[in-house]
Amino acid sequence: MTEFTPAPAGLPRHATIREVGLRDGLQSIAHVMPTEQKLQWIQGAYDAGQREIEVGSFVPARLLPQLADTAELLAFAKTLPGLVASVLVPNLKGAQRAMECEAELMLLPLSASHAHSLANLRKTPDEVVADIARIVDAREATGSRTVIEVGISTAFGCTLQGRVEPAEVLRLVRAVLDAGADRVGLADTVGYADPAMVQALFALILPVAGDKLNCGHFHDTRGLGLANVYAALQMGVTRFDACLAGIGGCPHAPGASGNVSTEDLAYMLASMDIATGLDFDKLIALRSKLAGWLSTETLHGTLWRAGLPKTMKPANAPSPTMTAVA
Amino acid sequence: MTEFTPAPAGLPRHATIREVGLRDGLQSIAHVMPTEQKLQWIQGAYDAGQREIEVGSFVPARLLPQLADTAELLAFAKTLPGLVASVLVPNLKGAQRAMECEAELMLLPLSASHAHSLANLRKTPDEVVADIARIVDAREATGSRTVIEVGISTAFGCTLQGRVEPAEVLRLVRAVLDAGADRVGLADTVGYADPAMVQALFALILPVAGDKLNCGHFHDTRGLGLANVYAALQMGVTRFDACLAGIGGCPHAPGASGNVSTEDLAYMLASMDIATGLDFDKLIALRSKLAGWLSTETLHGTLWRAGLPKTMKPANAPSPTMTAVA
Repeated sequence: MTEFTPAPAGLPRHATIREVGLRDGLQSIAHVMPTEQKLQWIQGAYDAGQREIEVGSFVPARLLPQLADTAELLAFAKTLPGLVASVLVPNLKGAQRAMECEAELMLLPLSASHAHSLANLRKTPDEVVADIARIVDAREATGSRTVIEVGISTAFGCTLQGRVEPAEVLRLVRAVLDAGADRVGLADTVGYADPAMVQALFALILPVAGDKLNCGHFHDTRGLGLANVYAALQMGVTRFDACLAGIGGCPHAPGASGNVSTEDLAYMLASMDIATGLDFDKLIALRSKLAGWLSTETLHGTLWRAGLPKTMKPANAPSPTMTAVA
Repeated sequence: MTEFTPAPAGLPRHATIREVGLRDGLQSIAHVMPTEQKLQWIQGAYDAGQREIEVGSFVPARLLPQLADTAELLAFAKTLPGLVASVLVPNLKGAQRAMECEAELMLLPLSASHAHSLANLRKTPDEVVADIARIVDAREATGSRTVIEVGISTAFGCTLQGRVEPAEVLRLVRAVLDAGADRVGLADTVGYADPAMVQALFALILPVAGDKLNCGHFHDTRGLGLANVYAALQMGVTRFDACLAGIGGCPHAPGASGNVSTEDLAYMLASMDIATGLDFDKLIALRSKLAGWLSTETLHGTLWRAGLPKTMKPANAPSPTMTAVA
């Protein structure tokens, strides 16, 4: 919406924000959101223009009671025309449920960190790659049309093992594509990435994965979420995960911010004339609904308070005044 | 500190963070910080490695009682070896005081927005340029060695007039350099900039100003502060203003974030192997002191809570664990 000329680096003209708050956000929050509120959230996100929503995860309810109603949410999401409803699945059993429920897309996490993989799934990364191959075979066997996307988590570092070698991330991307995954994304699960790391890692992997690498998942744990998105945009990435109000974060760090916030990311993209199809008024209205539902949680994001710049609003819209000297 | 290869775009190896919290931060806060606390802040910032600090502003105390002790702070700052102590001056009278007090640098604000200039200084931008010329002449007359830096405020847009033409910013930069200013910086006073705007505006002005354009002043009002810094770094900018704990913001938007936070900016730079000479433990310790002094204010920044990544800490340092799936 700004009339500035495009950045020298060159940026895409369109981008997609996948709402992952119902999964990555809510799984990190002890409070169990009632299904009725989740249904309102999905409808509201759809009404605001979101066309990709990760509605939950097919994991045992005893592990994540917050996501126990995923099948019901998926069934509802599938009634919304043009909505790509996705679910996270940690194993073959979850993948079978996703295919039975005819999810448009299932997200398979693969930790590039050996330590994180063992801690989360009690499997090595290569054992997870083998599972992914089995899931691909199962899809072929059933003739399911569910897209398989692998999210390479801790791709930029890990709180358990520390550094994660870019060469290991590259090796795993090759392995899952060889195993038949349709897409891969790179996830900064713990907020270790910086913009230079993002550009370096995407530069390393894009020549191998091409347009099958098409998602960036950045947490704002240390305030670099949107800077990392900008770095990825400069590499041609056009799909990003985000959570409304930036919910999520780390269960071990109360108040720590989670994924980049949907509304702030939508603002950054719109300000740079990158089309997302999102309606800010509806997004902000949905955010205040969410703030009511999660009144005991720390929320994040800035646009809800600051509002759109006058340069992005109808000429007659009111705007706060400001008197700082510099 | 990361071992990743540099970003494809290429980044500078060193950068300077100028602490402006004592001026831009405190001027936006009603609470008047006692001089004794300000002196501790200056000493603490110096001990943490900061070598440029804007200690206040020579404006009438009736306008900004928060900054009434600027001369005393400047006198103290000048006792710290190697510290570049700067003050903001809105006019010739303030400049004369800055030169009498032998400030190393005086920051002269010039609004690129006609409406903002009239609202703040009751002068048009061209009248302010004429003042700057008079200040340059006064410096020549006195033989003062105080460096004159012009901060082009509202360079990316204005809450009063909306869009600010890049061509007008360019015209004003030319005018102040012709008038004899030593340096210029571009300020996103109201948080309207996005990374593409930053790259486009610096790309427009650097060919004219060269290394005399060497400061970026970004507010985090809409969450893009660090993304904008990254964009400026890619253009070769190596000096940035910041406020500890991101204090400041807009007096008309309670809780709105102000400048980029010193500690988060320092973290982003260090993570990208851009040397700043800053000590994180001391910065974070100073931030908690500040949080005590400003216990009624909304503070910002993320590093104080999240801590440094394990990859940036001694191998034996403790680190939080994390169990999110992706």
